[in-house]
Amino acid sequence: MIAVDWGTTRVRAWRMDSAGRIRERRALDAGAMTVARDEFAAVLESLVGPWCAQGEGPLLLCGMVGSRHGWIEVPYVPCPASLADIAAGMVELPWAYGRVFIVPGLAYRDVDGVPDLLRGEESQALGAMAVLPEEGAALCLPGTHSKHLRVRNGRIVAFSTYMTGELFSLLLEHGILGRLADGRSIDDDAFAAGVQCMRGGASLSHRLFSVRACALTGELLPGAVAGYLSGLLIGHELSQLQAERIFIAAEPLLAKLYARAISIMGGAAQVLNADVAAAGLHRLALSLGERAFA
Amino acid sequence: MIAVDWGTTRVRAWRMDSAGRIRERRALDAGAMTVARDEFAAVLESLVGPWCAQGEGPLLLCGMVGSRHGWIEVPYVPCPASLADIAAGMVELPWAYGRVFIVPGLAYRDVDGVPDLLRGEESQALGAMAVLPEEGAALCLPGTHSKHLRVRNGRIVAFSTYMTGELFSLLLEHGILGRLADGRSIDDDAFAAGVQCMRGGASLSHRLFSVRACALTGELLPGAVAGYLSGLLIGHELSQLQAERIFIAAEPLLAKLYARAISIMGGAAQVLNADVAAAGLHRLALSLGERAFA
Repeated sequence: MIAVDWGTTRVRAWRMDSAGRIRERRALDAGAMTVARDEFAAVLESLVGPWCAQGEGPLLLCGMVGSRHGWIEVPYVPCPASLADIAAGMVELPWAYGRVFIVPGLAYRDVDGVPDLLRGEESQALGAMAVLPEEGAALCLPGTHSKHLRVRNGRIVAFSTYMTGELFSLLLEHGILGRLADGRSIDDDAFAAGVQCMRGGASLSHRLFSVRACALTGELLPGAVAGYLSGLLIGHELSQLQAERIFIAAEPLLAKLYARAISIMGGAAQVLNADVAAAGLHRLALSLGERAFA
Repeated sequence: MIAVDWGTTRVRAWRMDSAGRIRERRALDAGAMTVARDEFAAVLESLVGPWCAQGEGPLLLCGMVGSRHGWIEVPYVPCPASLADIAAGMVELPWAYGRVFIVPGLAYRDVDGVPDLLRGEESQALGAMAVLPEEGAALCLPGTHSKHLRVRNGRIVAFSTYMTGELFSLLLEHGILGRLADGRSIDDDAFAAGVQCMRGGASLSHRLFSVRACALTGELLPGAVAGYLSGLLIGHELSQLQAERIFIAAEPLLAKLYARAISIMGGAAQVLNADVAAAGLHRLALSLGERAFA
């Protein structure tokens, strides 16, 4: 089968055998937000056409490809949700080169009634479940909009989104703090200081100003501004994550940064490989059974 | 005397009599961040030259005019600070048309050792003291970088900055939430919902994403996005403000918004007039005594 994680800025594809082993991979900088509705079929062909020509299939696509501005809008499935609930929400699309299923995202409402949404991370969670403890764990998926998912007994039971990556970019690219920064590289010590600074649930919009105060007092050099800011934002995000077992799935540098922050905050995290979405999509393909492989 | 509040984006001047009554006022869109070092003298002349020609003086200037990128850098005075401490930190500048004193800002370090800075708000606090209860009060000065000051027995004893206004602008002008918003007007109900959503100290970077979730689920119409976002940011800021007596000084629309948020959060606030900076600078001028009026 072919697993495709079609996010906002990038699309990644994995060719997998029936046992779930990854055979080949491809990626394009053709995020779902930059592709017009009537161009998705052609982009998919340029991405995985050769695999399909060899008879590979079916194709399972997750992420923003199923959003309002994607290929087709696939309704959110309510969370808590199991593999079967998510599989039942998949939508099949006509495509010239094989059977294409788009995986639904999840909608959640917390105890205060405030809504939250995700698309793509449901497949990562389904893939991570193979190694997550049955009795419950937290899965942390860092990014532009980081997601924390609670997984228990084969179900995604809750999740929350943090605008960590977007705030980092906005503040450095367009805000007053950006004028104090020299570069985007993450200084280790400054990062640790930022994380420490958010322990105990300090106010984010207050602590963000400490970037400016520390820079003006000379305590923070321009080359360390990005690291300190990153520490504040990731520390703020992780101060909400209370769980005995924390798992992180992300590309290696980001995963390492988050694992370090969790360690500074007195916890421990296990880093999973970044291909959990492929594993989740493979499980969904298997669950289709006759429907997909007919 | 002449009181001048020279902020980042705007400069305001008040001509005051010896009893502290405002006789005339003028303002220019010539913020300290847009004026070059060698242009301050000329801008000040165009602002208050006619008053000086009539013998008015001395001139007391507060705000970013005393920052590193202002007319001259005036060192911060450590907080807690009294009127006398701040007066002692003033720096006199040579100027052709009268005696010019630049008021220092304050530097503070909280219980965690994290620094904070302000320039201009020290003069607003000195002016507000006339009506603030001696035994202690909180003074809330909303803006791009909102300030909360603790005032007790004639001294500014602590303060904290919140990047409320800057985050509002960044998120709407450059962020993903801006694409969901139609206009910047503040819808009353949406504002109240945003404030409510932050009660109990919810995570800001998490709740910010609820703007997107509520917009996508249809609970938040495009015309209400700015109001809800404003409610979240102001609610987050004010959730840190625990005081029996809260006073607000700001231009009327902003003061009303903050007073409403405090009321939603179960508190009560008294709104002061927006000329408290002039009152504070007048007190500083009087404290100069012989030094200024020689």
